[in-house]
Amino acid sequence: MIELGSYVGGKWVRGKGKAATLVNPATEEALATTSTEGLDFAGALAFAREKGGPALRAMTFTQRGEMLRAMSKAIHGKRDELLSMAQANGGNTRGDAKFDVDGAIGTLAAYADLAPELGDGHVLPDGDAVQLGRSARLFGQHVWTPREGVAVHVNAFNFPAWGLAEKAATALLAGMPVVSKPATSTALVTHRMTEILVEASAMPEGALSLVCGSAGDMLDLLGGQDVIAFTGSSVTAATLRAGPSVVTRATKINVEADSLNGAVLGPDVETGSDVMNLFVGDVVREMTQKTGQKCTAIRRIYVPRAQVAAVLELLSERLAAVKVGDPTQEGVTMGPVATAQQLRDVCAGIEKLTSAAKIVLGSSSRVEGLGAPAGKGYFVTPTLLHAAEPRSGDAVHEHEVFGPVATVMPYDDVASLVRLVAAGGGGLVTSVYSDDKDFLRGVVLGIGPHHGRVMIGSSKVAGQSLPPGMALPQLLHGGPGRAGGGEELGGRRGMALYMQRTALQGDRALLEMLAGRK
Amino acid sequence: MIELGSYVGGKWVRGKGKAATLVNPATEEALATTSTEGLDFAGALAFAREKGGPALRAMTFTQRGEMLRAMSKAIHGKRDELLSMAQANGGNTRGDAKFDVDGAIGTLAAYADLAPELGDGHVLPDGDAVQLGRSARLFGQHVWTPREGVAVHVNAFNFPAWGLAEKAATALLAGMPVVSKPATSTALVTHRMTEILVEASAMPEGALSLVCGSAGDMLDLLGGQDVIAFTGSSVTAATLRAGPSVVTRATKINVEADSLNGAVLGPDVETGSDVMNLFVGDVVREMTQKTGQKCTAIRRIYVPRAQVAAVLELLSERLAAVKVGDPTQEGVTMGPVATAQQLRDVCAGIEKLTSAAKIVLGSSSRVEGLGAPAGKGYFVTPTLLHAAEPRSGDAVHEHEVFGPVATVMPYDDVASLVRLVAAGGGGLVTSVYSDDKDFLRGVVLGIGPHHGRVMIGSSKVAGQSLPPGMALPQLLHGGPGRAGGGEELGGRRGMALYMQRTALQGDRALLEMLAGRK
Repeated sequence: MIELGSYVGGKWVRGKGKAATLVNPATEEALATTSTEGLDFAGALAFAREKGGPALRAMTFTQRGEMLRAMSKAIHGKRDELLSMAQANGGNTRGDAKFDVDGAIGTLAAYADLAPELGDGHVLPDGDAVQLGRSARLFGQHVWTPREGVAVHVNAFNFPAWGLAEKAATALLAGMPVVSKPATSTALVTHRMTEILVEASAMPEGALSLVCGSAGDMLDLLGGQDVIAFTGSSVTAATLRAGPSVVTRATKINVEADSLNGAVLGPDVETGSDVMNLFVGDVVREMTQKTGQKCTAIRRIYVPRAQVAAVLELLSERLAAVKVGDPTQEGVTMGPVATAQQLRDVCAGIEKLTSAAKIVLGSSSRVEGLGAPAGKGYFVTPTLLHAAEPRSGDAVHEHEVFGPVATVMPYDDVASLVRLVAAGGGGLVTSVYSDDKDFLRGVVLGIGPHHGRVMIGSSKVAGQSLPPGMALPQLLHGGPGRAGGGEELGGRRGMALYMQRTALQGDRALLEMLAGRK
Repeated sequence: MIELGSYVGGKWVRGKGKAATLVNPATEEALATTSTEGLDFAGALAFAREKGGPALRAMTFTQRGEMLRAMSKAIHGKRDELLSMAQANGGNTRGDAKFDVDGAIGTLAAYADLAPELGDGHVLPDGDAVQLGRSARLFGQHVWTPREGVAVHVNAFNFPAWGLAEKAATALLAGMPVVSKPATSTALVTHRMTEILVEASAMPEGALSLVCGSAGDMLDLLGGQDVIAFTGSSVTAATLRAGPSVVTRATKINVEADSLNGAVLGPDVETGSDVMNLFVGDVVREMTQKTGQKCTAIRRIYVPRAQVAAVLELLSERLAAVKVGDPTQEGVTMGPVATAQQLRDVCAGIEKLTSAAKIVLGSSSRVEGLGAPAGKGYFVTPTLLHAAEPRSGDAVHEHEVFGPVATVMPYDDVASLVRLVAAGGGGLVTSVYSDDKDFLRGVVLGIGPHHGRVMIGSSKVAGQSLPPGMALPQLLHGGPGRAGGGEELGGRRGMALYMQRTALQGDRALLEMLAGRK
């Protein structure tokens, strides 16, 4: 069996003691083991800060962009190998694996494309110089410079490729070295990506490290120039926020956590229309892609009361056609969930939802998977629920079931609809399907403060729309409240986490020189 | 004696039980009492969210700007009364009181001036629309909308007027209602300002509340749409960051905490030059204004090794001329510190600094104040220290003494200077005095990541420079690490805390309508 290492201090090292085992979730076959016991975390962080940081800061934005391009190309060169690994260790269909791996390649490339806009310097001006007081000489100019610490990235099990890349692209372009810690259960892809990047010498020494397994006490060793970016459950997020680095040393933390993403069907949308087809296609894809294990997957579906029966029928028909099984087998369209614990959580979660909703399709029990050994694999079936009288505070609005599960609910008017969507307590994305401008204005601006992103599915874009569940490098990824309060991606917006904004105050000509404008 | 109330739920209410006493720190005479025991904090927050929030959000940016103008004018109309109160309750000289009260008036006016730039709508576009994918229709547009919660402002004792105003101006312009909690010991000015604003009907009902005394469990009642903005000690900051609202519900928190602000004299600056005079004037003012009780006051002074003796002499001469006493008395140029506890902390802090530095002028003991009753008043004298061999980790770089106290230190070259300044662990502002462009580039960009603001004092601005200790509404106020990691003011930058940024994705024409561009 493969024994995975961590890449820290510029070399591959293996932990001691009891190792964690990575399995194939379709067959429960063991694939690899890993341990970080005995790793010198303080040394790993120091190496990143002292070797990686200065090397990255010595590079211009343009040079960092070239580095990201090389990283993207190196991963692209081993795409097939990574896709197979994602299928084996992640329970991914080929399409799921592409969504993750191509997402990684594309996000690195998008940040490489962004670099030239940032100029051939080391300092990023923020806005224009502003005159202070009456003197025509005395000005203020805000600039961004890279933080001089290390960015520790704690990623979720569902995107071992994209998770590494989207966080690293932003940090590295900003000029901060990265220590990436994938979720142990699906770390095979992240581990291989790191090997590929190291073999390609895509980054300077110390710019990218990998901790493959438990993070131990690493997060407690961070300071005021360091950054934590976390994607995962709100329970873990709370633990990280309460850690001594964040609480006493103001280590910056960015959190992407739970999100009960919504889909809203407008009252104007007729059965058979392009917009209705977009809505149904989006809901089915977002429920089943990666077996519903996406932080952006649709969990709550709001439909005009009169349309509920028709929508339940349309969705049930499409979802019933999904073939659940070992994703390497011909004809299978949805794989297992990633771990035995996820399976338990999804089943228990569906049970919880039934306190406020009825199951229309699917169940709260494990199922057998097509082509999988009998009794083996963490399989669940797409499960659609219907909550006839949804209320703020019910399980449908409070509990995220991280699997192929969503609930259809009626609404009566814009005001009560906005209240229900907002009752999710803050989310990453909600999609709204309509051509009615007044309806869109009321809903989109009404739910705006509760979301990091709102997708509008209208006739004009029905044929070319991008899925709501796809986090795009150009647009913000994150959301308030339950979703963690974070901001990633969004072009240069996400780089703010990794840079310090400083107001420079003085003679205008001096400021322009310092900001790299002269 | 005056019994102060809190303004919550749209009315003035008084707490029960044991009250705190506000005193005149020059005479120790009791001025007022206040208590918040028994206050309905949950009701106060709900009133702000349910009355104040919708009223503010219904106003355009322009209308909110008019509100801020009315607030500024109302306070200006009672300026003399407020100045006298600040002298009595704050130990302020007339100049200190003006710095606080005029700062409040000016910051409200500056945000009123900013409003028209934000347009006559309710949504703030963030950047331009960006094309997504290949379709010429499909775009993304980021927008800011006000958070739908309440902003709780916890302010420090040193700026009872400006503290209220600078935080409220930003939040109210963003469209969020405010519950302001001044430090109890100097709350007289904040209380009176709130009375003035309420009497002038400057804001809609619920837009501004005042909690005058202990905050009780109020901060634990906040949620994911609420905001905490705190200014005060890093010890209290740690408690607030570890609170359940922040940790489990992602309540946004902004912290301004301790800061060991620096002043750096360049190697090119000659005695008698404009720049040297600016440097000496700034250091003396920042040490003694408000008796050194400013988060932006200069604590560490770095001087070329050869210049140390001359600078110590120049500063000592100026500081020795300071007259400490009751600030209402003729000739007094520096008042007492604000409370008995502050006096104890300053004296103990000076003792602590002597582990790494020698006292050149002043002492670590209380002194008698001119014109104050014998044995009464919390007086200290300007105290200048000299650390001949400064090191990262020594008390001078770790311990903020919140009084008229600073330490002069030598440096040998840019690299070691930058390391020493950075050893403060993150600060609000450092000022650098020089005309040498290479020196300025090395120092300013070197210390940039460790600061929220850097002031450059050069010949060209020597006659018109604004003091480094003055937080300007146009420029960022905040700093990383020890300084709390926050960002306030900076024009519209500070409004980000009170708004949610959302990426809208869809047909370009729809997005422009929603962003208020059509």
